[in-house]
Amino acid sequence: MSTTATTPAELYVEVQNFYARQVRLQNDGRTEEWAATFTEDGRLKHEPDDAVVHRVGKGTFLGRAELATTMRGLHKKLTDAQIQQRHLYTMLTVEPRDDGTIETSYYSLVFRIKPGQKPAPEVSCPTHDVLVRGKGGNLLVRSRTITHDECA
Amino acid sequence: MSTTATTPAELYVEVQNFYARQVRLQNDGRTEEWAATFTEDGRLKHEPDDAVVHRVGKGTFLGRAELATTMRGLHKKLTDAQIQQRHLYTMLTVEPRDDGTIETSYYSLVFRIKPGQKPAPEVSCPTHDVLVRGKGGNLLVRSRTITHDECA
Amino acid sequence: MSTTATTPAELYVEVQNFYARQVRLQNDGRTEEWAATFTEDGRLKHEPDDAVVHRVGKGTFLGRAELATTMRGLHKKLTDAQIQQRHLYTMLTVEPRDDGTIETSYYSLVFRIKPGQKPAPEVSCPTHDVLVRGKGGNLLVRSRTITHDECA
Repeated sequence: MSTTATTPAELYVEVQNFYARQVRLQNDGRTEEWAATFTEDGRLKHEPDDAVVHRVGKGTFLGRAELATTMRGLHKKLTDAQIQQRHLYTMLTVEPRDDGTIETSYYSLVFRIKPGQKPAPEVSCPTHDVLVRGKGGNLLVRSRTITHDECA
Repeated sequence: MSTTATTPAELYVEVQNFYARQVRLQNDGRTEEWAATFTEDGRLKHEPDDAVVHRVGKGTFLGRAELATTMRGLHKKLTDAQIQQRHLYTMLTVEPRDDGTIETSYYSLVFRIKPGQKPAPEVSCPTHDVLVRGKGGNLLVRSRTITHDECA
Repeated sequence: MSTTATTPAELYVEVQNFYARQVRLQNDGRTEEWAATFTEDGRLKHEPDDAVVHRVGKGTFLGRAELATTMRGLHKKLTDAQIQQRHLYTMLTVEPRDDGTIETSYYSLVFRIKPGQKPAPEVSCPTHDVLVRGKGGNLLVRSRTITHDECA
């Protein structure tokens, strides 16, 4: 990992906009639209796997259908518990590869807001994505690896 | 809201710089300068309105004079209580409109630092702005709608 | 400090990428690589000086060797205590100067993650850097001034 940046500004900004929109779909429970920001065979993986097993039964999910189903279940649990979740992505790196893929990494810090309480940090997850272009040129997540700093 | 970004990088960066400077004026209590980053008839609105009524008496403020007066009062309260406030804006979207306005949205997470204590999250506010250009081409906030995740 | 941005997008993005990489070197304990992101005579200063004296014995550090030694000691303390630290930089301003230096400022909010606990905010530090170009054109920190909102 070099500290010399060669990322075109247009691409970096496109990725920032993409994540800002994607994260709203997730936090607002727009499950199908969120799953559609992954490729058809998109893969989402938690490390270590057992960091999320108590929440969702397993740690790796494959394809839009499974992603949507999982997210729908998670969002229902949060809604039932009157929890609003907010993901904050910071410290983003964007690295275009020769094969046309785009590798990104960012710190994802998740906050939860419960009725009558202050926002509270829930979990810290350095994340690594591989992005590709869809048919219309739009960005899609082909794989996402979510590392848990601790199984909080 | 599309997940395809068409925001020019120059504009996105200009908005990022603008907010970074504006937020310092607010957090540092530079009230008049902060109010001057709004248009003369600038509007700042909290939703729900009663989320801030206990703090400032009402939830919608119109014009630079009222904005400055309100902010001055708020900052005095914080200063008297030895509280340093820090706003963190993340997950920014920037969308230029055909009419020349620029619509933005971001997660605003406010932290408070009190003497001898660690920083503490105070409130989470997804925010929507409409920006316009002033006479010198500089960015100004014409309207800001601050949504409170919870009335914490 | 003007609220009119004149920062080229390419430079702003380069700085964002630089910090995203630099902060990982720090948080991951890659001490020598982290120190190499400063100039040979790089200076790191805490304000007030006594904000960190209880942690590291003094508040100002000069040169890569001293920076590396200090960071190695700090990282060992954290590792021994099973603490993972994450720095979140937000509200970044980037201002190129006529003399070729680049002045930046940002809010640095440090989170700590301990085994079995949720992430916790540790300290809030508005920071000011002066960046210069190395021989290869890469960014380097010539001086960093870290202001502590409170001696938490």
